[in-house]
Amino acid sequence: MTVTADETAQPALAAGAHPTPCLVIDVDVAREQYQRIADAFAGAHIHYAVKANPEPPLLRALVAAGCRFDVASRAEIDLCLAAGASPGDLSYGHPIKKAEDIAYAYARGVRLFAFDSEGELDKIVNHAPGSSVMCRVLASSKGARWPLSRKFGCVPEMAVDLMKVAALRGLDPAGIAFHVGSQQLYPERWEPSVATAASIFAALRGSGVDLRVLNAGGGFPVSYRTPVEPITSYASAIRSAVMRHFGQDAPSLMIEPGRYVAAPAGVLHTQVVLVARKSYDDEPRWVYLDVGRFGGLAETEEEAIQYELRTARDGPTGPVILAGPTCDSVDILYQHAPYDLPLDLAAGEEIRILGTGAYTATYSSVGFNGLPPLRTVIR
Amino acid sequence: MTVTADETAQPALAAGAHPTPCLVIDVDVAREQYQRIADAFAGAHIHYAVKANPEPPLLRALVAAGCRFDVASRAEIDLCLAAGASPGDLSYGHPIKKAEDIAYAYARGVRLFAFDSEGELDKIVNHAPGSSVMCRVLASSKGARWPLSRKFGCVPEMAVDLMKVAALRGLDPAGIAFHVGSQQLYPERWEPSVATAASIFAALRGSGVDLRVLNAGGGFPVSYRTPVEPITSYASAIRSAVMRHFGQDAPSLMIEPGRYVAAPAGVLHTQVVLVARKSYDDEPRWVYLDVGRFGGLAETEEEAIQYELRTARDGPTGPVILAGPTCDSVDILYQHAPYDLPLDLAAGEEIRILGTGAYTATYSSVGFNGLPPLRTVIR
Repeated sequence: MTVTADETAQPALAAGAHPTPCLVIDVDVAREQYQRIADAFAGAHIHYAVKANPEPPLLRALVAAGCRFDVASRAEIDLCLAAGASPGDLSYGHPIKKAEDIAYAYARGVRLFAFDSEGELDKIVNHAPGSSVMCRVLASSKGARWPLSRKFGCVPEMAVDLMKVAALRGLDPAGIAFHVGSQQLYPERWEPSVATAASIFAALRGSGVDLRVLNAGGGFPVSYRTPVEPITSYASAIRSAVMRHFGQDAPSLMIEPGRYVAAPAGVLHTQVVLVARKSYDDEPRWVYLDVGRFGGLAETEEEAIQYELRTARDGPTGPVILAGPTCDSVDILYQHAPYDLPLDLAAGEEIRILGTGAYTATYSSVGFNGLPPLRTVIR
Repeated sequence: MTVTADETAQPALAAGAHPTPCLVIDVDVAREQYQRIADAFAGAHIHYAVKANPEPPLLRALVAAGCRFDVASRAEIDLCLAAGASPGDLSYGHPIKKAEDIAYAYARGVRLFAFDSEGELDKIVNHAPGSSVMCRVLASSKGARWPLSRKFGCVPEMAVDLMKVAALRGLDPAGIAFHVGSQQLYPERWEPSVATAASIFAALRGSGVDLRVLNAGGGFPVSYRTPVEPITSYASAIRSAVMRHFGQDAPSLMIEPGRYVAAPAGVLHTQVVLVARKSYDDEPRWVYLDVGRFGGLAETEEEAIQYELRTARDGPTGPVILAGPTCDSVDILYQHAPYDLPLDLAAGEEIRILGTGAYTATYSSVGFNGLPPLRTVIR
């Protein structure tokens, strides 16, 4: 749910000005993040992963800045086109699509699709004839805070075979895609997949199929409670790996940042609903917020993403367990990760959760416990 | 999202008649389940846990059948009152509430509230003066498929103290509540908490505070892939435990079934988006459905709830890994639990997921990956 322009003037952002919970997005920050990653990866095609945050003003700012887009559904295609993107700048990067959604994308001018299986390739042949395709290969996401499983990506031998089939069936075999896992902390984790991709390029060249695009995916991390390396470290590591494994035949590089662009642009305003001790022992206090795992903080599952919290005031602090507002007992944010909040914290106080611009509002449940979805305000 | 009456005629329920994914609710089944549990617990107050499924036609049917309600938010109060419930039949059973939500409930005539901490008791004193209160005590949820943590419930000593405070501050100390965890399979798991409650009743009687209500919560299980004992087993076990621990001074019994009433009433119609092998090894096929963890099947987290699947046809089957339609790699339904589906299963085929009437549609994300929330159709 987005709020209209009237409510977005900066003066309204004083503490308590928004009914909580509320996600405040600063589009300028996202634009700066885009510029930072575009500079670091100069010459690469940057496709913003719309699923991270599809707010129209954010998309419009990125269109204006020259960004391209990675989309996962019809709705995301419509949002990008409405924001002024050209269909030629869209990549339908989700390897699992309904046939009718491929046809929908094709009818709107999208000509770049990802796949990772024979069944999906069939659908693209039938519903997006002549389009360019990228085959996604399985990559290790070791070291990622939000790792990927074997859900996406085929083995390299299969990628070689499927790209030959793609060429035979009239598609344009553009390149190889992989993803090393979201919030991937280690720059060196891209190299094994770059090497794999290079071997696939080489194998196909032997069969007369010339690939030209290396899609190194997303995963570029942002600083939550722990600082991460600057984006230039990741760019250098990937560029070195490409040089090492591709040599003189360097492919065009494509990346799909989502979190990196959107996360720092968001601050979630939440309110303490209750501070409680449930026994007389000296245990941490339970602090219940009005936002939780089902209200937008889905990535706190297993405490994977540990957001930075800010209270309005200083003073002595003590350990807390942080929980969301629903009746569901899995709706606990942090009980193992150490969090400290003021000793005199009380119900009604506002807390700000930083770095919440990506993978939050759209995850919010439509109405569990009768609670409305997380509202977004654009500043 | 609910569809209007025109679309709900039975003939429309033939396979493929609904765009998938779609949750079809049969209100008659919920009414029968209500009658079954009301018969088993004859004399008890049955408060349907609205969070399980708040669809208005379901609530109206339950009002007509004489059911009471357990609510967790303003919106659930409004839904119950709109369905014809009397505010006196509502229990605001969620122990964590904003002060303004307590005031809202009180203004609409709700007079029964739960709490489990001093801070919450303060809010009830201030915003719902004179109301009846239940103190929730910590219970073991060992044996539950969707166990509860230490998020709710205080220790018994604290419950004794807080109920004395409640009486002193003008509230009506009605009783003790506990919850042994959702989809609790073992009838004997209620007894330890009944014993705890009895000791609290006894301790307070010594101080001149006479409690009268034992709220044994919900948790009553339904058969998913594995049959569970009939509801009469749980009723007998609880009744015996009450007799054993309360003797002649049996309290009024109150229960809060949600899943038991609503789960069997729902069938989720979903479609296969893709069947894929990602390597040439003999591994299970990956089957991607158009509904997943973020589209309503949140309770498949850690494969806790294992739903029964139905395909339209028979024939030889083989093992599959089941995943949802989003780009998120945690959106996998079952990769450890053994599931088998037809060997020739193909994209576009419909699969029905049984027992999905509770804790599904309201958990659905508002738009992750640009996918719309799960639609409900009432038959």
